[in-house]
Amino acid sequence: MRGNCIVAQSGGPTAVINQSLCGVIQEAQKHREIEEICGAKNGILGLLKEELIDLRKEKTSAIDNLGTTPGAALGSCRYRLKSWSESKKDFEKIIEICRKYNLRYFFYIGGNDSMDTTNKVNEAAKRMDYQLKVIGIPKTIDNDLVFTDHCPGFASAAKYLAVSVMEAGRHLESLYGSESATILETLGRNTGWLAGSCALAKRSKEDAPHLIYFPEIPFSLDKFIKDVKEVYHKIGGVFIVVSEGLRDKKGNYVCARKDGVSIDAFGHPELEGISGYLKELVESRLKLKTRTIKSDICQQSAVHFASRVDMEEAYLVGKEAVKLALEGKSGYMITIKRGKGKVYERRISAARLSLVANMEKKVPLRWINRRGNFVTEEFIEYVRPLIQGEVNIPTQNGLPCYAKLEKRRILAKK
Amino acid sequence: MRGNCIVAQSGGPTAVINQSLCGVIQEAQKHREIEEICGAKNGILGLLKEELIDLRKEKTSAIDNLGTTPGAALGSCRYRLKSWSESKKDFEKIIEICRKYNLRYFFYIGGNDSMDTTNKVNEAAKRMDYQLKVIGIPKTIDNDLVFTDHCPGFASAAKYLAVSVMEAGRHLESLYGSESATILETLGRNTGWLAGSCALAKRSKEDAPHLIYFPEIPFSLDKFIKDVKEVYHKIGGVFIVVSEGLRDKKGNYVCARKDGVSIDAFGHPELEGISGYLKELVESRLKLKTRTIKSDICQQSAVHFASRVDMEEAYLVGKEAVKLALEGKSGYMITIKRGKGKVYERRISAARLSLVANMEKKVPLRWINRRGNFVTEEFIEYVRPLIQGEVNIPTQNGLPCYAKLEKRRILAKK
Repeated sequence: MRGNCIVAQSGGPTAVINQSLCGVIQEAQKHREIEEICGAKNGILGLLKEELIDLRKEKTSAIDNLGTTPGAALGSCRYRLKSWSESKKDFEKIIEICRKYNLRYFFYIGGNDSMDTTNKVNEAAKRMDYQLKVIGIPKTIDNDLVFTDHCPGFASAAKYLAVSVMEAGRHLESLYGSESATILETLGRNTGWLAGSCALAKRSKEDAPHLIYFPEIPFSLDKFIKDVKEVYHKIGGVFIVVSEGLRDKKGNYVCARKDGVSIDAFGHPELEGISGYLKELVESRLKLKTRTIKSDICQQSAVHFASRVDMEEAYLVGKEAVKLALEGKSGYMITIKRGKGKVYERRISAARLSLVANMEKKVPLRWINRRGNFVTEEFIEYVRPLIQGEVNIPTQNGLPCYAKLEKRRILAKK
Repeated sequence: MRGNCIVAQSGGPTAVINQSLCGVIQEAQKHREIEEICGAKNGILGLLKEELIDLRKEKTSAIDNLGTTPGAALGSCRYRLKSWSESKKDFEKIIEICRKYNLRYFFYIGGNDSMDTTNKVNEAAKRMDYQLKVIGIPKTIDNDLVFTDHCPGFASAAKYLAVSVMEAGRHLESLYGSESATILETLGRNTGWLAGSCALAKRSKEDAPHLIYFPEIPFSLDKFIKDVKEVYHKIGGVFIVVSEGLRDKKGNYVCARKDGVSIDAFGHPELEGISGYLKELVESRLKLKTRTIKSDICQQSAVHFASRVDMEEAYLVGKEAVKLALEGKSGYMITIKRGKGKVYERRISAARLSLVANMEKKVPLRWINRRGNFVTEEFIEYVRPLIQGEVNIPTQNGLPCYAKLEKRRILAKK
């Protein structure tokens, strides 16, 4: 089917989200069926607002350098499409714009909320009898998409966090006695993939991190204090990693704000604050001077220490999305399957968007130790191959040189 | 004078503190006057506790790799020596140990609090008529030592923060509309050197950071809200950098905890919390969803993105300290002087410890803009040469390979 394609980015950007964009653009350029290559500004909002960018007009060098540029080059959004039964308004607008611009291929780079959007666009096109090939491209540092072994973006965040723990761990170690505890808070929402990955920093028993806490394991304050005390008495200091989304045994977040500003479009409450909360606890109950680290969006955007494997895979899922759409498939998200052997091998596959949207893959409980405060060797074996390899980024005057798109508007043909 | 030398590290480690250690060791190895090369474990405490390490016994490769290792390889401390008039106990112990081990050269790597220690050791040796050559080696990310153009450790922290702002800034930019503000909190205590350095991230008007707040300028909440509002209306989002040590017009810290755990040996209160405080303000007053970043000790320990110039200079001040002591000088801190020309040139000099100890160099007010919310071009010109060049760190399995010392105890000769 000949026509134009549209690509957009959604949700929290990752260090490699632009690699996927680059993969889509460069693959689309190879195929005659695809005429214009449009980018929607700020995800689905760009389609709704008719803010479409002509990606064929961008400089080749800008596209080449996209992959090592943080943020979402097209802009992103956190916008929730209502369901078909709630309101057809957005869908009518989307399909109207698709018709106007003859958009026939729709690529959406995002996480589980964004796969909900992608799925809804696919369903709407079918219902409205508009020929549109819709493919989702996985992206999330949370690593919580189902049907895929892992998600592009996760490994770079994991690598950045692991190096942070290595470095801050050495720092803490040299101050044992005067500053005795450090708490590093990771993102990851309801899953402990990122928190668990900090274990990569550990090379010996004494190395940081000493304790890791997961959203998958009900959090007990008393047990936490007991754990911290035990490590402190054994080695003279303690480096703790906590996932932002810890929950108590009733399933309530240990730290969640409930005011209006802090809830996003998908109804997720803001979780930040767990490290500060636990710091106060460690200081008051154990009298240990404690520092907290909250890298927050730095762990999502740290291209300067990204994983090469992650970069390659992010590009690959973008490229494969285009191929799948051109095979006539629609309503799928690209997935990565891992070979069973000892040496890391991957192959690309796909899963139905309807099965992926809004689902969440947690860390298997058998990959967390019995005491619920560290990962097992299996977790490490899972994540280690994904953080391999460094990425060369062009620098200028001591700092990275990051690309920018010119973002020229595209106009529909009369 | 023939004898043994002792070197120690004190205060918060920096990304390059071990380069200075390396400089001392490798220079000391070249001189016949210096017999044993001892390291004191955990700064002055190692001397008081007679925990001395034989640095000649360390592997050459471990010493070579020290320079790219975070933390303080010998261990550090935050210990305040009482003044001579308050108590002679510590001084008597220190000189006793010096005699016992025939320590004749004393090198202390640290910031302004540590230069107080160094100065006191120098004075005590003189009073007790013990021949000891005492030289301080500057180290602090805060960049607040007087008589030196800048301090080793500062530039690497500045570079790490600048890349963090670049990356997190791109991240925020792609989400303008759904997440509109980010507040990054830097260290720096009473000076805005680190906060100001984040301005290096800015390449165009729209780039982060948009606003920077300094301890040097009395902080007004109302003016802050006005500034944020103005930037937000102009560009749709706002990236704010704040120094941990902001003070109101009465000179009180905007955020300081006063409980016992949070005050260090030198009486400095803990300052963390300003970003969280301002976030609540921005969210409640302006209804802008705001995220906070607090890299904390990661900015002190991030060897993986250190400045090569900083690394070289940290080595140099260590090396020059040994040379100065061998010239017979005592009671000095090594300083770095900058040439007057456009091209960055440095030369090594020295300043009296008694003039350096406990003093604090603030950002000159003429380097902060009139509105008190950004740096001037002069600040940028000052810091830019210091962050140049990347450092190659050995990696293994996708993560840095950091050295460790074996730390064999040294015994005094009978």
